[in-house]
Amino acid sequence: MNFQIIRKILGHIMCVEAVFMLPALGISLARGERRSVMGFAITMLLLLVLGLILSRKQAERKDYYAREGFITAGLTWLVVSIFGALPFTISGAIPSFVDSFFETVSGFTTTGASILTNVEALPMGMLYWRSFTHWLGGMGVLVFLLAISPIMGDTGDALYLLRAESPGINVGKLVPRMRRSAATLYLIYVALTVLQFVLLVFDMPVFDALTTAFGTAGTGGFAIKNDSLTSYSVYSQAVTTVFMFLFAVNFTVYYLLLLRRFRQALGSQELLCYLGIAVVSILIISVDILPIFGSLGTAVHHASFTVGSVMSTTGFAISDFDLWPELSRCILLVLMFIGACAGSTGGGIKVVRILLLVRIAKREVRRTLHPHEVKMVHMDGMTVDEKTVSSVANFVLIYIVITTISTLLLALEGKDFTTTFSSVAACINNVGPGLGAVGPTLNYSCYTWFGKLVLSFAMLFGRLELYPMLALFIPSAWKK
Amino acid sequence: MNFQIIRKILGHIMCVEAVFMLPALGISLARGERRSVMGFAITMLLLLVLGLILSRKQAERKDYYAREGFITAGLTWLVVSIFGALPFTISGAIPSFVDSFFETVSGFTTTGASILTNVEALPMGMLYWRSFTHWLGGMGVLVFLLAISPIMGDTGDALYLLRAESPGINVGKLVPRMRRSAATLYLIYVALTVLQFVLLVFDMPVFDALTTAFGTAGTGGFAIKNDSLTSYSVYSQAVTTVFMFLFAVNFTVYYLLLLRRFRQALGSQELLCYLGIAVVSILIISVDILPIFGSLGTAVHHASFTVGSVMSTTGFAISDFDLWPELSRCILLVLMFIGACAGSTGGGIKVVRILLLVRIAKREVRRTLHPHEVKMVHMDGMTVDEKTVSSVANFVLIYIVITTISTLLLALEGKDFTTTFSSVAACINNVGPGLGAVGPTLNYSCYTWFGKLVLSFAMLFGRLELYPMLALFIPSAWKK
Repeated sequence: MNFQIIRKILGHIMCVEAVFMLPALGISLARGERRSVMGFAITMLLLLVLGLILSRKQAERKDYYAREGFITAGLTWLVVSIFGALPFTISGAIPSFVDSFFETVSGFTTTGASILTNVEALPMGMLYWRSFTHWLGGMGVLVFLLAISPIMGDTGDALYLLRAESPGINVGKLVPRMRRSAATLYLIYVALTVLQFVLLVFDMPVFDALTTAFGTAGTGGFAIKNDSLTSYSVYSQAVTTVFMFLFAVNFTVYYLLLLRRFRQALGSQELLCYLGIAVVSILIISVDILPIFGSLGTAVHHASFTVGSVMSTTGFAISDFDLWPELSRCILLVLMFIGACAGSTGGGIKVVRILLLVRIAKREVRRTLHPHEVKMVHMDGMTVDEKTVSSVANFVLIYIVITTISTLLLALEGKDFTTTFSSVAACINNVGPGLGAVGPTLNYSCYTWFGKLVLSFAMLFGRLELYPMLALFIPSAWKK
Repeated sequence: MNFQIIRKILGHIMCVEAVFMLPALGISLARGERRSVMGFAITMLLLLVLGLILSRKQAERKDYYAREGFITAGLTWLVVSIFGALPFTISGAIPSFVDSFFETVSGFTTTGASILTNVEALPMGMLYWRSFTHWLGGMGVLVFLLAISPIMGDTGDALYLLRAESPGINVGKLVPRMRRSAATLYLIYVALTVLQFVLLVFDMPVFDALTTAFGTAGTGGFAIKNDSLTSYSVYSQAVTTVFMFLFAVNFTVYYLLLLRRFRQALGSQELLCYLGIAVVSILIISVDILPIFGSLGTAVHHASFTVGSVMSTTGFAISDFDLWPELSRCILLVLMFIGACAGSTGGGIKVVRILLLVRIAKREVRRTLHPHEVKMVHMDGMTVDEKTVSSVANFVLIYIVITTISTLLLALEGKDFTTTFSSVAACINNVGPGLGAVGPTLNYSCYTWFGKLVLSFAMLFGRLELYPMLALFIPSAWKK
């Protein structure tokens, strides 16, 4: 284990986080929010001092492999969340540190689950920071580091870092050179965010448009209103629906579109499957909720927004879907686990894995019925090698194991089963609102510090796709 | 596809079922239950006539492979359930055929889920038949056929039939000769049943002891009282607890004990894991429910009975565990899926698969962190080949997919999520009672015919371990 390079990366990341707090500090200063200014200033000072100490010494050893990548990613996200939580606690905006930690993890992992009962009471600087964590966490803080900094050199080893942080199973195919790849992804990300902001700012205040765009781009879901997006116009809700769907698409698709490789971009089986699931879900739910909304148009509007919100794992709400019929609620629960496309900012198991899973299941059935037939699993016209096949199957199994363990731990809190299970589902899949006592009109303040920590870790497990967090708990990963 | 031999086996099975109805007919005659006599007589006549027609012609082709085995098992269980339901409908004891079908599938699959709101109103002949289906279904109707009849010859091809019907992944290792193996298993089964009957008959009427022994041996769960086993003495409840645990053990263990191979018998990792899970669950639940029962002894008694009932997937109840704290309820829900040991009469995913699953997950994590290490999965000191590893992982995935699809279909009934999900869990794992509206003091009469059919199929999928039922729905399995 190359601790030197991990130390160095951590130091860099801490400095970067301090810089990222600048806009929030600026807003706090401009608004004269004295306690917030203090919160950000102290945290930034701490981050810079510790960050510079850690990153000062050059790393002598250059070996950097999978283990190092996972441990770095796991540690980074923990450290960034802990320091990201400090301004809330220091300023007194969220007095309990566990609450602040939950809220910040929820921000960086783009979950959007909140313990705040009155969001609107938060100072503007804090609201900005809260929404900005979504935007940072959406693409990944380490990806950002790779995009701007030559820290790792331009070697293939950086691939391990990118792989450990990025969702999905096809990262690194885009551009052979890591830094250019990371920069390209960030550019697409920025462009889409700006586009949404421009479309929204016609219809709502600048600050609202900005935070909503942050929450959508990161597929996060923190809103600055207590009723989420309910009180905004249908136009703004529709724009957000479209962008939630857009940010849940594999960014490779946009990259290929930029290269005018239209057929390759739009022929991706994951994309088609994603759109198929979305359309079918919207249709069924629209029919199911028609009696609640009366008109078909309104029902489709609400179904589209909610399906987009849940599949992209954003978690914005314009209606209390916890009151919808059981069929719709179950579909939404399943969509939480399916999640977004790989290589997007969304969470969940990812559409491509679900698609592979169905094919693996079909193959297994065939193999059992016809033991002498040899069949391969295909994707986008290519044969999927057996290593990938088994790693996808095992990933989903580990995902289910961790979901089950989290549910058992959370059951200690004594909430009803729907609340307990949907809390875990909404957190591990980075969605945000669940059902029952954590439905879209409610929040996670009902849990004790223990439940909040369990859910915080569920969010981190989900966002980092298990392994970086698992690595932190496995002694063999730390061995020299 | 060799339809001739399938036809012939089906014919035999139907004749066997007619014979199995004899005791119930006898009881009905003795008790002067005229409508029941009519129900059984007509069904038996139908079975014999159709059975003899189907099995009359010799099968010319002898080829019999995996597909044929699965299709035979799937068809047999459907046919046996349909005809087994007829006496209930014809006699008017359960007027609706869908209800009778549900009750009979629940019996044969040893689920024990009931649509009856007043069990005690059933005529004695019907009560006997209802409990007897558990005993027949526990070991498997096809295993019985193999044990008594030379229909398949003594060739290895019969292995396919046994494999398709028997739970677990290690059937057929015991004795190379199928018929002797099947006969040995049945003998152990009969001996254990008789032993329990003898221990119970000191303390309860003969009929009660007999039906309770049937329900325990098959790990079924139908009781002849509305309150399940609540009103029996603590002694009878304790005896039943012990036997529920015994019937959930891999029967290979008893076979090895008979051969005095004690170390091999008791050193099985599945057995140790099964006992470990049981003990830990009993301890946690005992502490959790202590406030309800006051004394530790009573709490341990209720926890042991319920853990035994749920893990063995029997489903007897002596207390309304739906009222227990959420932690206990969640543990019970997880235990439903874990289920019993392979090669027992119990259901669920099976302990050996869960054990393998944990090892596969561990290996996957290690492989991800240390990509260049080669590690194998071990069980009982032997290396598990990669084909078994992937088939176990894929089995669990397909199990989850079918659970999810069943939950979505059942959600159409509009029950709350806890009820919907636990209904599917209790049926696919062949447990019986669930939580919420299908808790231990309630029943499945709350569902429409659609929900009952969905759950009937879930029970069959679970009992036959997916593939025989899947085969029925897959066109390629039927190809000539």
